Amino acid sequence: MSPIPGLADVGLLGGGVIGGGWAARFLLNGVDVTLYDPDPEAPRKVGEVIANARRAYASLTMAPLPAEGSLRFVATPEEAVVGVDFVQESAPERLDLKQSILMRASAAADPSVVFGSSTSGLLPTQIQTGMHHPERLVVGHPFNPVYLLPLVEICGGEATSEAAKTRAAEVYTAIGMRPLVLGKEIDGFVADRLLEALWREALWLVNDGVATTEQIDDAIRFGAGLRWSFMGTFLVYRIAGGEAGMRHFMAQFGPALQWPWTKLMDVPELTEDLLDRLVAQSDDQAAGQSIRELEALRDDCLVAVMQGLRTVGYGAGEVLADYERALFDRAPAPVAVGDLTQPFKVHEIRIPTDWVDYNGHTNDSRYAQLSGDAADAFLRYIGVDADYLRGGHSYYTVESHISYLAQSHAGDVVYVTSQVLSHDAKRLHLFNRMHRSDDNTLIATGEHMYLHVDTNEGRTVPAPQYMIDRIAVIADGQAALARPPQAGRFVGAPR
Amino acid sequence: MSPIPGLADVGLLGGGVIGGGWAARFLLNGVDVTLYDPDPEAPRKVGEVIANARRAYASLTMAPLPAEGSLRFVATPEEAVVGVDFVQESAPERLDLKQSILMRASAAADPSVVFGSSTSGLLPTQIQTGMHHPERLVVGHPFNPVYLLPLVEICGGEATSEAAKTRAAEVYTAIGMRPLVLGKEIDGFVADRLLEALWREALWLVNDGVATTEQIDDAIRFGAGLRWSFMGTFLVYRIAGGEAGMRHFMAQFGPALQWPWTKLMDVPELTEDLLDRLVAQSDDQAAGQSIRELEALRDDCLVAVMQGLRTVGYGAGEVLADYERALFDRAPAPVAVGDLTQPFKVHEIRIPTDWVDYNGHTNDSRYAQLSGDAADAFLRYIGVDADYLRGGHSYYTVESHISYLAQSHAGDVVYVTSQVLSHDAKRLHLFNRMHRSDDNTLIATGEHMYLHVDTNEGRTVPAPQYMIDRIAVIADGQAALARPPQAGRFVGAPR
Repeated sequence: MSPIPGLADVGLLGGGVIGGGWAARFLLNGVDVTLYDPDPEAPRKVGEVIANARRAYASLTMAPLPAEGSLRFVATPEEAVVGVDFVQESAPERLDLKQSILMRASAAADPSVVFGSSTSGLLPTQIQTGMHHPERLVVGHPFNPVYLLPLVEICGGEATSEAAKTRAAEVYTAIGMRPLVLGKEIDGFVADRLLEALWREALWLVNDGVATTEQIDDAIRFGAGLRWSFMGTFLVYRIAGGEAGMRHFMAQFGPALQWPWTKLMDVPELTEDLLDRLVAQSDDQAAGQSIRELEALRDDCLVAVMQGLRTVGYGAGEVLADYERALFDRAPAPVAVGDLTQPFKVHEIRIPTDWVDYNGHTNDSRYAQLSGDAADAFLRYIGVDADYLRGGHSYYTVESHISYLAQSHAGDVVYVTSQVLSHDAKRLHLFNRMHRSDDNTLIATGEHMYLHVDTNEGRTVPAPQYMIDRIAVIADGQAALARPPQAGRFVGAPR
Repeated sequence: MSPIPGLADVGLLGGGVIGGGWAARFLLNGVDVTLYDPDPEAPRKVGEVIANARRAYASLTMAPLPAEGSLRFVATPEEAVVGVDFVQESAPERLDLKQSILMRASAAADPSVVFGSSTSGLLPTQIQTGMHHPERLVVGHPFNPVYLLPLVEICGGEATSEAAKTRAAEVYTAIGMRPLVLGKEIDGFVADRLLEALWREALWLVNDGVATTEQIDDAIRFGAGLRWSFMGTFLVYRIAGGEAGMRHFMAQFGPALQWPWTKLMDVPELTEDLLDRLVAQSDDQAAGQSIRELEALRDDCLVAVMQGLRTVGYGAGEVLADYERALFDRAPAPVAVGDLTQPFKVHEIRIPTDWVDYNGHTNDSRYAQLSGDAADAFLRYIGVDADYLRGGHSYYTVESHISYLAQSHAGDVVYVTSQVLSHDAKRLHLFNRMHRSDDNTLIATGEHMYLHVDTNEGRTVPAPQYMIDRIAVIADGQAALARPPQAGRFVGAPR
């Protein structure tokens, strides 16, 4: 059974950098992939992209990814599409080649199966010409690396049905992407026209000796590029316009469009001299790093940026959070905690990027936070939820003791277990163990005393009986557990 | 004494969004600011930018920021520059206006003081015309929000000296920025030419009804914009070219420059109809969020992205880490109170808004952070600074005990004192008291045991004698102090 309803198998036509990226994204989402590429090197190249993707997904999310799909290479376009639920074409950017492959594949596929084309510039009306059931062809234009970047532009041709666009958007969303459905068919669609405009100007700056490739890249990544990772150019300018609004901004900066920044209007000739300079400057910039090293650096940065934005719940961070919720929804129900005699796993997180100091270690106070968050989860389990708090009762922390045993770093997955050391109607004495998830190393322990309080009157009162009973079930189950060596320690106690 | 050598005071000419951003960045880095702006609303506007910046810096870094500089508004350009160490001009983008202000200010300033101009498009050769000592004028072009984005383009005019460019780069680096020194003077410099190229194409897409402002923004922020936050367009394309290299990439994609994406070649006329559509689409996109809300969202995202990149140590994350190291280097030793027989005041802050839970109380784990930050300040006082850490030695926390005695709220100013309970060559046993500053209420105590370690070998080693001696001076002075009642407590000990 597929983890994504109606998406068990896909057929891929083409296995270059883009086709390999699609293969990786589908496989890591539990979808089986059948891939056609005439290049005998395709299995190696696709394998390298999948290896990169596996590495990135290992740190991208803690949500439960399904079991990886299976990958099969076939010798013809027809074999790639028989019996599949969706087809994605990523052949080289030559119209005749795409038309020929799609004609053959569409004759073999079930008529209801939707085809996406990865073309970055060819029009869907041209691409669908000659297809069997051309109404099911949409452009689904992704961005490199396909397994990480959320954007996919969906664009239909004259013959394309609305149903095909809807189906393609469903498929892409299910594998964690963010479809942008365009209303008009246009050369270069939207994103590549914007990229191309910027790149053309960048080539002029190199051509005219104004800046090197590295300086141009720095001018992007230390400035506007940081903003563009979560807000596009229009929203950024709206903010720049301030309270006076967008019309005021246009009045102020619109005239600059007519200023003598004239090289925008022309295309630099790609002379041998310009190419030599581009290549030499690019080599300097790479400073000996291989493409594999640069790919890993790029993916690490993308993961870090998307995880950072997830803490804000905005842009690509919102896409990631939605994707993770869907993964949780599709995950099998957690096995009921059978063994109540053991410390109770209450909390698991990935160390966030803002928990570490500049040398990468988790700051010591964050272990107090981690243990406190775990205790909050324990309290929710016994009934201290938002409604209960609104009702004017809570548990307040009286004292805490943290023992630091090993280091952790941003990106580490850690889990926390709770053990009830003692309790009565008013008191709850918890002992938490913090572990790295990869090897179960105990990195810290937290011991906390809580008092049940009436928050309006600010005094200690007994907890309700049902809550005491829930604590008792856990405490009784754990009664045979040894007292942890860190429990009852005072700071400086002999070991 | 200034926390940045040779940068105690700056004069700012102009206090709009950009001038206010400069004010915030200098003030938060402990530099005193004198600001001239004829707009009677300037103090309010600048105050709002500073409030935004304070909010962002409260979560940007755990490194010790210096005490905020003081801000003074003056009525003339001359008053703004007398006695200052650096001048930044951010007047409106009118050449005659900038020339007039700079002529007056440069006549009043010390001849050795360097002037930066925030112009985004005017040429330094024109701007410096008429200045006294024009050789000290450079363009120092920042990006909004100035207090967070690292990029500043430095560009000299015909009269500009190399020394002025060097000095400007030093000043900008000292306040956490990343200078990009351009070799050629050109309209729009580098970054704005790239932004303008993209924006011009974006306007065409709206003009032609291909996409809305929101769709265009989505095409950036879910795709290439994520990459641009750490790698510019050339390095991204180098990777896309794969093992075959940059020349191959150009052969493959260079011809696309000549494809019929012709709107690049022309400028859309800003008709009333186009302006109406831009404004309406931008309003839809903002969905009722005010500029203040959008600014806060933008700043939260920028902080999150830079913190994410810091974990990778790349791009703006590397700039942030370097800045934090410098902050540690410049962190002032705590002011030695005259009375060494008392607990030692090491730390004082205002409780940030993200430290409190839903009911407005400071979250319990934040007391651990507060006590830990105070201990860091104590350690810096005895010589554990950035150089010492780089040298491979540090104090590691072994265990902590926190007693929670009273509540505090966002906005409360709190201070922390340290008492040395015991120490030897390898161990340091500290007891911290956290007080509200308004009424000296003791709100929490923190007890910590530290071990001096060789961080490379990961084992305990004796601290150097000078460090032990510094601890001993404090410990001996405090020898007669009573042992605090919370010291030596274990969790759940009888009271």
